[in-house]
Amino acid sequence: MSAPEVTGRLAAWIVDLRPDAIPASVRREAVRTFVNWLGCAVGGASHETVDRALAAVRPLSGPRSAQVLGRAERLDPLHAALVNGIASHVLDYDDTHLKTIIHPAGPVASAILAVAEGRAVGGADFLTALTVGIEVECRIGNAVYPEHYDRGWHITGTAGVFGAAAATGRLLGLDARRMTWALGLAATQASGLREMFGTMTKSFHPGRAAQNGAMAAFLAEAGFDSSEHAIEAPRGFARVLSTKQDYGAILGGLGEHWEAGLNSYKPFACGIVIHPAIDGCRQLREVLGDRVGAIRSVALRTHPLVLELTGKTTPQTGLEGKFSVYHAAATALLRGEGGPEAFTDDRVQDPAIIALRERVGATTDPEIAEDAVHITVTLDDGTIVERRIDHAIGSLERPLSDDDLSAKFRGQAAAVIGDQAAEALLDAAWRIESTDDAASIAALSVPDR
Amino acid sequence: MSAPEVTGRLAAWIVDLRPDAIPASVRREAVRTFVNWLGCAVGGASHETVDRALAAVRPLSGPRSAQVLGRAERLDPLHAALVNGIASHVLDYDDTHLKTIIHPAGPVASAILAVAEGRAVGGADFLTALTVGIEVECRIGNAVYPEHYDRGWHITGTAGVFGAAAATGRLLGLDARRMTWALGLAATQASGLREMFGTMTKSFHPGRAAQNGAMAAFLAEAGFDSSEHAIEAPRGFARVLSTKQDYGAILGGLGEHWEAGLNSYKPFACGIVIHPAIDGCRQLREVLGDRVGAIRSVALRTHPLVLELTGKTTPQTGLEGKFSVYHAAATALLRGEGGPEAFTDDRVQDPAIIALRERVGATTDPEIAEDAVHITVTLDDGTIVERRIDHAIGSLERPLSDDDLSAKFRGQAAAVIGDQAAEALLDAAWRIESTDDAASIAALSVPDR
Repeated sequence: MSAPEVTGRLAAWIVDLRPDAIPASVRREAVRTFVNWLGCAVGGASHETVDRALAAVRPLSGPRSAQVLGRAERLDPLHAALVNGIASHVLDYDDTHLKTIIHPAGPVASAILAVAEGRAVGGADFLTALTVGIEVECRIGNAVYPEHYDRGWHITGTAGVFGAAAATGRLLGLDARRMTWALGLAATQASGLREMFGTMTKSFHPGRAAQNGAMAAFLAEAGFDSSEHAIEAPRGFARVLSTKQDYGAILGGLGEHWEAGLNSYKPFACGIVIHPAIDGCRQLREVLGDRVGAIRSVALRTHPLVLELTGKTTPQTGLEGKFSVYHAAATALLRGEGGPEAFTDDRVQDPAIIALRERVGATTDPEIAEDAVHITVTLDDGTIVERRIDHAIGSLERPLSDDDLSAKFRGQAAAVIGDQAAEALLDAAWRIESTDDAASIAALSVPDR
Repeated sequence: MSAPEVTGRLAAWIVDLRPDAIPASVRREAVRTFVNWLGCAVGGASHETVDRALAAVRPLSGPRSAQVLGRAERLDPLHAALVNGIASHVLDYDDTHLKTIIHPAGPVASAILAVAEGRAVGGADFLTALTVGIEVECRIGNAVYPEHYDRGWHITGTAGVFGAAAATGRLLGLDARRMTWALGLAATQASGLREMFGTMTKSFHPGRAAQNGAMAAFLAEAGFDSSEHAIEAPRGFARVLSTKQDYGAILGGLGEHWEAGLNSYKPFACGIVIHPAIDGCRQLREVLGDRVGAIRSVALRTHPLVLELTGKTTPQTGLEGKFSVYHAAATALLRGEGGPEAFTDDRVQDPAIIALRERVGATTDPEIAEDAVHITVTLDDGTIVERRIDHAIGSLERPLSDDDLSAKFRGQAAAVIGDQAAEALLDAAWRIESTDDAASIAALSVPDR
């Protein structure tokens, strides 16, 4: 085999990494990632997508050692990982590794929090596992992106399962050989089609990646063997699921350069590519004031990916609305909204928003960056107002602050579990690294009632 | 979308099919498929691969409504589907749809038997679901084979999950819309890499396909929605996982021409492509008698796929031995064996077999059919003995008879559950179609002790 021994070397690194070898700034980013993920999981917990997933899995659950976040129910760790992963993604409000559009925390945090419950995993070890899992999935993503994504794979599912396996395997204390098996069992379960965008099955992907990655680690722990070259082999993950295989992106500078330190957090509850448009429309709303009622037309100039991913002109449901830059722009202009409230069935069916949506046009320009947009609003009286966004809020250049993350958390969690519970949960989340039993935080997410 | 509405039309057919519209010959083949699958699942039940899978899932099981075949344990239906699917494939002794090399029963029967337990599904309905599931997976396989397989996908996993979803969905009585969702949830879980061949993870694929397909049906039943064009959409299954998309193979002659009637059953416990070599070597053994101890060399001329799939020259384990035409030929010549006993660790490490194995050479010839071989044995005294196999035993041209299937069943099952239990189970299996509660047969597979 001419490819370097990628899987084996990656597995050895996962197993051997010393927690104190992770830079403080990266550990801090992992805490921010955890806070953001937990808020999203609790915030999504009351969505009907979660109700339906629970209806299916509730009768099948094993011993209920793990909490369904933001709800009263408990499930076995595999099913809890599935449901929490779904909940954390269903509002499209979670974290993003911008180089690959992977949403890193869903697969990884959902797996390890559920597995850690009842095992008294210390906060530092928990955070190490979270960091390692995110590092692994983002590096594997870098190795195959964008060709892999362009082919039609939902990379949060396909790369995420490796992150979940690595992080769970680290929690279980797998040796290096078993870790290669866990990565092999992850590789052979890598799945998730972009065709599912706009349906409940999109958020199934990070949930199932969490569950499948955890299962991979449990099987490897039990001695269930697998290929030890699953990533790089001729019929392994990278060649079968991508035309690009940059193994240097997986192994280069491991432990020196950290992808886990490059996570970002969404200020708006939808695909990252329409964030510039929402950001710009909200800024224009401030400028226009009452004149938002007198808009003749809105012209967006965007990166081509924006229309490829979010070009739905007539969305019918809240979930479809997340894939319509037209709906998002209209809602941001008319109501200033970009959070979960902007993507409900009610908003998507609101006649005033539909009327404005139909006046939004979009053209693509490959010169415009993915996190940029140019917006031209023409009013009924012919007045033209323009706004150019170079880096949308939430990008690495304009990251959400800790206070922003706390505000986002409160906005999501309070509606589901009440103000008091949300505040206690947020406080515990920021202190996750110093907790004796990291997973005990899950119990704090149970609603007040 | 220019592709025809494949998923929707297939789903409608699955839901609407009347049991009496299935020809008697196809139903009979389904009974033979069930008998063969059940024998394989019981025969594989004591394999260490199954032990290890059980060690991992036992603590995670939900309510134990379903039998682990050939063992005393019970599990929830999803985990039972997984473990029974693994067991039915681990000996590489199961059934084969020769056009696609799909092993149809593993994903489908493992799912529906586990789900049917406790639901009092009549034998006729059970057999209809089995037939429909096999028809669906083989047709989807035909649509993408061989390009899909050549790329590196283990098609029993990737197509099998559709069969399991269709059959389980039929048992659950899903309506047509929910059936499209089940097929969508199957599509987005389609996975399994050929890199896993020769490891325990190969048999994980049909098991996981069974489990994932059943889960897809349970989720769809609960209203968890999905794409309704998952097979044919631009970023759906056929385009993302294959460069060939022959939708006519899915929809053409549905209900008239039956792929489920074309199933075949292995006389030897290994990949179908080396069956001609084993068949021929066993015939040569009859001719050679004592002179098998005086072989200077063995020259095989085979289809190229034989060496691509089974070209391992120095296998170390029984599982690896299944991927070595050299080991298989040597064992067939020296001991006349081709069943599970030929592919144990002991046999693969037997010095006498290794000595003969090293004298086996193979060349490929694209003119030779996949189910053919030409074998030239040269003895120490220079004598040359040849044998040409045009259609290996077990092929559609030389199918196993019902008596052959019974003998194969007894050979596998008796060793695991005892003679009496094996006989009672076999008898019940042949009568599956007239049973009031089809799944009650599972309890008969518990070992005598």
